[in-house]
Amino acid sequence: MAIPLSIQWINGQLIILNQQKLPHETEYITLNTIEDAFDAIITLKVRGAPAIGITAAFGLALAAQRHETETLEVFHHYVKKDAIYLGSSRPTAVNLVWALSRLQQSINSAKTVEDAKAQILAEAIRIHEEDEQACRNIGGYALDLLEGRTKVLTICNAGSIATAKYGTALAPFHLGKELGREFEVYACETRPVFQGARLTVWELQQAGVDVTLITDSMAAHTISAKGIEAIIVGADRIAANGDTANKIGTLNLAILAAAYNIPFYVAAPVSTFDLQIPNGKNIPIEERSAEEITYVAGQPIAPKNTKVFNPAFDVTPAHYITAIITEKGIIHPDYERNIQELLVAVK
Amino acid sequence: MAIPLSIQWINGQLIILNQQKLPHETEYITLNTIEDAFDAIITLKVRGAPAIGITAAFGLALAAQRHETETLEVFHHYVKKDAIYLGSSRPTAVNLVWALSRLQQSINSAKTVEDAKAQILAEAIRIHEEDEQACRNIGGYALDLLEGRTKVLTICNAGSIATAKYGTALAPFHLGKELGREFEVYACETRPVFQGARLTVWELQQAGVDVTLITDSMAAHTISAKGIEAIIVGADRIAANGDTANKIGTLNLAILAAAYNIPFYVAAPVSTFDLQIPNGKNIPIEERSAEEITYVAGQPIAPKNTKVFNPAFDVTPAHYITAIITEKGIIHPDYERNIQELLVAVK
Repeated sequence: MAIPLSIQWINGQLIILNQQKLPHETEYITLNTIEDAFDAIITLKVRGAPAIGITAAFGLALAAQRHETETLEVFHHYVKKDAIYLGSSRPTAVNLVWALSRLQQSINSAKTVEDAKAQILAEAIRIHEEDEQACRNIGGYALDLLEGRTKVLTICNAGSIATAKYGTALAPFHLGKELGREFEVYACETRPVFQGARLTVWELQQAGVDVTLITDSMAAHTISAKGIEAIIVGADRIAANGDTANKIGTLNLAILAAAYNIPFYVAAPVSTFDLQIPNGKNIPIEERSAEEITYVAGQPIAPKNTKVFNPAFDVTPAHYITAIITEKGIIHPDYERNIQELLVAVK
Repeated sequence: MAIPLSIQWINGQLIILNQQKLPHETEYITLNTIEDAFDAIITLKVRGAPAIGITAAFGLALAAQRHETETLEVFHHYVKKDAIYLGSSRPTAVNLVWALSRLQQSINSAKTVEDAKAQILAEAIRIHEEDEQACRNIGGYALDLLEGRTKVLTICNAGSIATAKYGTALAPFHLGKELGREFEVYACETRPVFQGARLTVWELQQAGVDVTLITDSMAAHTISAKGIEAIIVGADRIAANGDTANKIGTLNLAILAAAYNIPFYVAAPVSTFDLQIPNGKNIPIEERSAEEITYVAGQPIAPKNTKVFNPAFDVTPAHYITAIITEKGIIHPDYERNIQELLVAVK
């Protein structure tokens, strides 16, 4: 048993876990070209903001190795063209754009094409390693907060396979396993797309972490009947005041945590904060297709022409959040002040 | 558009809606024999405690019409045998046993077999009519409570097709439609069995009531984003102190209602109260198979051998319930005292 990895760079080869086939088939595929990387991102073989960013970084570095020119200016032009191409695979993914621009900057001071090729690959490897370290740090801080607690509920998949390793919300369970701390994890199936059932259950099973699946509707009863001691979730975006956008269903859990007087933790890297957004009211919520709810595995589960409301995310008000766990430290309320403080300290 | 009926007694024929085929096919079938009635109940063609009781009552009355004897004692013996047979179709259904014993009592004072045949059929028709009237009353009381509110959330199917007509939690929407009061209903899909998506959406669409489907995980965001003004649910069993067992997911909603400061109503006939049970801690919770969660429409949505917790019901503590709506009146807190008072007044 081992923590599953979504991305591996082995002997100059980029190997990814095909998450489209999970949980029924564990398939690793080699991405040989920039087109392979583009395809892996656009077809959701790789998912999770950090994992997408890392894949794009390696895709750009792979392509760069093969550009045949001795002229730095031409090489820069090739890399820029490649970055635009890869950046168009999932335009709303912030980490994707961030990783690609970091790689482009990494070759700004290169003296030769050979030098630039080495530097761009080194930067991709660095992004990969840094993300693993960031997740490991999050796991460590989360383990501190979870001291004395073993029964923890989570939603969606803020896991190893969405990052370089360890994940964010799932990091304490993986790191805990390495350090000899056992948890009983309860995974909400996470309708409509079942990331909990398909991905989190699979990932934790692979790592030998005890995991039990429930439907989202069972959360309150499970907290009460099983004695859940904490809830931990990931985040898609965190506003300046701590309001947190995450997978739909997160807000239900935050309110239940308050009702049962158990801590509710958000685990996310500092890149998740968006200080341009003062509070949750300003976070746009994507609405997705009706069919995502009315069809499961290709089968209809509701009448034809059913009217559906399908928001992909919800926003948990900061006052429901016990602490925000980042790779740079734990943020407690007052969030408005403490988020600012931590982010300034980081820079 | 009309309120769909699960059971119709037309020209001496028992016609039921085959709920197994919903929502993709609307099939009405005629039950000609007691074996047909038994089959309809055991294969879940008819569901919902009141509807099961009514079907069994008509099944028993149908069979009684055909018993060829002039001896009352022999006739009583036949009816008793039939009742035992029908009662074994779903042994835990309280209404089933109640309806069958009421029919048997109805022929106790009959002077002739002919007389007994007429009385047993009349009693079945009476049970059917009384249930419709009870549900209509619940709808009326619910409409009083919902005065000035139009956006209402519900879960599962406490609907017309689970009763003679109107349903319990859905009664105000049907009766409101008849009386010219329009609602915007939000239906939770109700995992794992999707009664909300399959049955409530279909039923309300048939009746011309505006209904929008959401996943259970979307409840909190929907309450907030759509301005839900009340939540109304059915009940499987209500303890003497008002604690209410209902479909898993109900407790989530009760806690959300409290958090958003909107009323949370339970709608149920007085037969739902179980005064032998002092409070919710004493209500046993059935756990069902893992496959009910891990398979949807025959397709696996989780890894093989996934550990699952699958409680069929949860118990909502009475302090979350704004009012309990019965056919005999609305019960407000203090429930311990007021439930007792209403039930005594009824007897």
